[in-house]
Amino acid sequence: MGPAPTPPVNDVVTADAHYRALVCELCAQLYTSGAATGTGGGMCILEGGRLYVAPSGVPKERIASADVFVVSPAGYEVIVPPATASLSLSACLPLFSLAIERRGAGAVVHSHSVAAVMAGMTAVRPVGEADGGIRGGVTEVFEISHLEMLKGLFWGGRDAAAAGRLSDAGGDGAGGRTGRIGYEDTLVIPVIRNTPFERELVSGMAAAMDAYPDAPAVMVKRHGVYGANECLEFLFDLATRMRGVGMALVGGDQ
Amino acid sequence: MGPAPTPPVNDVVTADAHYRALVCELCAQLYTSGAATGTGGGMCILEGGRLYVAPSGVPKERIASADVFVVSPAGYEVIVPPATASLSLSACLPLFSLAIERRGAGAVVHSHSVAAVMAGMTAVRPVGEADGGIRGGVTEVFEISHLEMLKGLFWGGRDAAAAGRLSDAGGDGAGGRTGRIGYEDTLVIPVIRNTPFERELVSGMAAAMDAYPDAPAVMVKRHGVYGANECLEFLFDLATRMRGVGMALVGGDQ
Amino acid sequence: MGPAPTPPVNDVVTADAHYRALVCELCAQLYTSGAATGTGGGMCILEGGRLYVAPSGVPKERIASADVFVVSPAGYEVIVPPATASLSLSACLPLFSLAIERRGAGAVVHSHSVAAVMAGMTAVRPVGEADGGIRGGVTEVFEISHLEMLKGLFWGGRDAAAAGRLSDAGGDGAGGRTGRIGYEDTLVIPVIRNTPFERELVSGMAAAMDAYPDAPAVMVKRHGVYGANECLEFLFDLATRMRGVGMALVGGDQ
Amino acid sequence: MGPAPTPPVNDVVTADAHYRALVCELCAQLYTSGAATGTGGGMCILEGGRLYVAPSGVPKERIASADVFVVSPAGYEVIVPPATASLSLSACLPLFSLAIERRGAGAVVHSHSVAAVMAGMTAVRPVGEADGGIRGGVTEVFEISHLEMLKGLFWGGRDAAAAGRLSDAGGDGAGGRTGRIGYEDTLVIPVIRNTPFERELVSGMAAAMDAYPDAPAVMVKRHGVYGANECLEFLFDLATRMRGVGMALVGGDQ
Repeated sequence: MGPAPTPPVNDVVTADAHYRALVCELCAQLYTSGAATGTGGGMCILEGGRLYVAPSGVPKERIASADVFVVSPAGYEVIVPPATASLSLSACLPLFSLAIERRGAGAVVHSHSVAAVMAGMTAVRPVGEADGGIRGGVTEVFEISHLEMLKGLFWGGRDAAAAGRLSDAGGDGAGGRTGRIGYEDTLVIPVIRNTPFERELVSGMAAAMDAYPDAPAVMVKRHGVYGANECLEFLFDLATRMRGVGMALVGGDQ
Repeated sequence: MGPAPTPPVNDVVTADAHYRALVCELCAQLYTSGAATGTGGGMCILEGGRLYVAPSGVPKERIASADVFVVSPAGYEVIVPPATASLSLSACLPLFSLAIERRGAGAVVHSHSVAAVMAGMTAVRPVGEADGGIRGGVTEVFEISHLEMLKGLFWGGRDAAAAGRLSDAGGDGAGGRTGRIGYEDTLVIPVIRNTPFERELVSGMAAAMDAYPDAPAVMVKRHGVYGANECLEFLFDLATRMRGVGMALVGGDQ
Repeated sequence: MGPAPTPPVNDVVTADAHYRALVCELCAQLYTSGAATGTGGGMCILEGGRLYVAPSGVPKERIASADVFVVSPAGYEVIVPPATASLSLSACLPLFSLAIERRGAGAVVHSHSVAAVMAGMTAVRPVGEADGGIRGGVTEVFEISHLEMLKGLFWGGRDAAAAGRLSDAGGDGAGGRTGRIGYEDTLVIPVIRNTPFERELVSGMAAAMDAYPDAPAVMVKRHGVYGANECLEFLFDLATRMRGVGMALVGGDQ
Repeated sequence: MGPAPTPPVNDVVTADAHYRALVCELCAQLYTSGAATGTGGGMCILEGGRLYVAPSGVPKERIASADVFVVSPAGYEVIVPPATASLSLSACLPLFSLAIERRGAGAVVHSHSVAAVMAGMTAVRPVGEADGGIRGGVTEVFEISHLEMLKGLFWGGRDAAAAGRLSDAGGDGAGGRTGRIGYEDTLVIPVIRNTPFERELVSGMAAAMDAYPDAPAVMVKRHGVYGANECLEFLFDLATRMRGVGMALVGGDQ
């Protein structure tokens, strides 16, 4: 969901505790599912005009509620610093912001799963003439159709339908489809090349999102995916297995 | 087990709390085992003339006991609505009902596991003359024999033996075998094609169940399986691996 | 460890609660590790002249402490029945007894893991002249060497060194090696064919154990393994992967 | 981090309870992740001049806090014995010490994971002229580049930057790079052959560490890895899969 007006103080206190705990709980779940092992992966939740962000470079299954950053969505000013002073904000924050601004996302997950990395290497295809040529600098896409799990994903991400009112924030989500992806639809996810530093991904990811407004996520090759959810992870895992036995990912023939 | 007469009120209160909690606990276990990741999968339990059903389209590992629907088995009238008013009944309900009506099922699990989807694509064979030709519109079957885990499955499902007394509900389970499947038996599960909406699966699944009264489950291609249990999931996983190394699924030769 | 003299009453009470809980806890762990999914797998613990046995045909992750059977090691007389009267003793009991009598086992685990079943089908070799021909009716063996995990296994099982004093119970464990298996040693596990009923496995398993006194376990093809532990499960998993990429299991060359 | 001066008594009491609990908690996590199944794997933490070490040959997911050994880093004198008198110190201790002395490690993990063993057999290459020939007796290396997960690893291990002040303890870490490994860097990990007893690994591992001062870990073929962390385990898993589909591990071309 998009940013809401600031709620009264008591609600903030209650919501604050809730969303801090939720960030910790979901990070632990990301760890267990393999999306955030080591110190990789991360997530944020936007609620009540406050952005709750997991700290950077720490084991995601061990975050304390008091160590979740609370920052302003615009400018990332720290509203409430973490209890542990040495912690730093996730380097993914500018990338999370793209999903918030361009797609109206209320929560963004970044996954480092083996499935996402393997799919990015073995289950992608080059962009060609039939795609209208290379757009937004994207030379490869992940593409899959005819799987029930597609129905757990939304065109442009879960909150894209709300993105129209965010157009002043730079989003062009209004140009794409909204609502749930269907069983017979073809999901296309742009794949961008990785860079040594996450901040260097921002312009490429923004271009990819603008060029592929329907995509609920952007894959970063040999790195992971921004805009992950469990349905997408399922599809990455399945696609890797399907390619491993030589099956086509689109068409539903087999 | 089949529907029982309505118990006295006190028992209902106790049983109600128990079965609500059990739905939540089993849904969490389905999530952990990979059968209900994302918002996929689901289950229901029939007890004391009440059907306990997981809500639709929510993460199955996070269902609150108060959010389990209680509906009437016939007509799905909501007896007790969920605490969260925005929740909706599982779209699987008409499919769960087929298992209740035709097989006397007391609980039905729907799995979206990678194993079930992979097995449906890579470990099935076309129906031929030796099968008596195409029956119930089923053109493919999953077939396996000579595995100890078969003994955890029952002809027509665990409760099929009770299905005789349900014949007025439209079931023809009486035509099939009952009891545990044996080590040397050949399990045959019909595979039907998926459709954009779950309601469109009803007639095909009913026809498949009638044509294959011995089958404890029906697979839906590129979607999952209705009538899943852990023994069946094990067989899907194993069958996919066996086919991956070129082994036959029937005969027990290797 | 082998059977000990009956301890004083207070110790029995304390130990009883402990070993009942331990059976439940270890069964849950077997479930989590994949060794006892569905209603498969099982285990028993021999302590203080009492055999603590998981009930049969129930989900192993859900056993209540009060539902663990306590039986006499000889004759399986039920000393304390389970709280739930409808439960039945594990059909594996006569097979567990072989390990107790012939190998002095103090605990026996039966695993149904995918790894054990796959290894039994894809990582075994026929018995030949170099093995001294077919002994005890065993026509295939699982064989592996040069892996550190071997050091977690013992010749004839963990308690085989105590088996000498059990010879009046029919064991001939005295004929084999004892102590930990070494890194450079070759583990050989006999593989017997499965039968429709577990009781039909007894004579074949007894013959295999007598013919292979050094083996800490017996594999049952397309079924699982008796005498499992996590080190052995690791080796089954690894062996299946090694064979999957064409590696030899013995010699340590690669 | 390196050894610190002995802290005041009260701090020791608090820290002692904390680090004992942490060893148990991390060992359980190693078990769950597959790095310490059976009785394999292990770990130690160096804090306040005291070395907290998991006991040897016991299931790592079941260690009691009172059973963690506290020993002196030099000489391994037992400062506080475990509550269970029969427990013995990890045979890995001399190998853990190498990482403490040569790399300033504040904690060392030894993993027995399937991924580490498979990578050591299938994702290594022989050392050649381009490597400057065989150094420290190391004839094979694991080598990988262009993966985001590399950024969770440090040249010479996390604490190598502190190793300069440890040179009187025999370390030559000063000769290598320090800081985080980059996305485009090539990680090279020496692989040594396994031996029947862990004590026999000491000289080979010391030589490998001296010859490869940049390496954050040493792999032991058919055994596991010393200096493991979850990022490294991820790379072993991924590398095994990449080699399984014929991909190069270095260069980032695919």
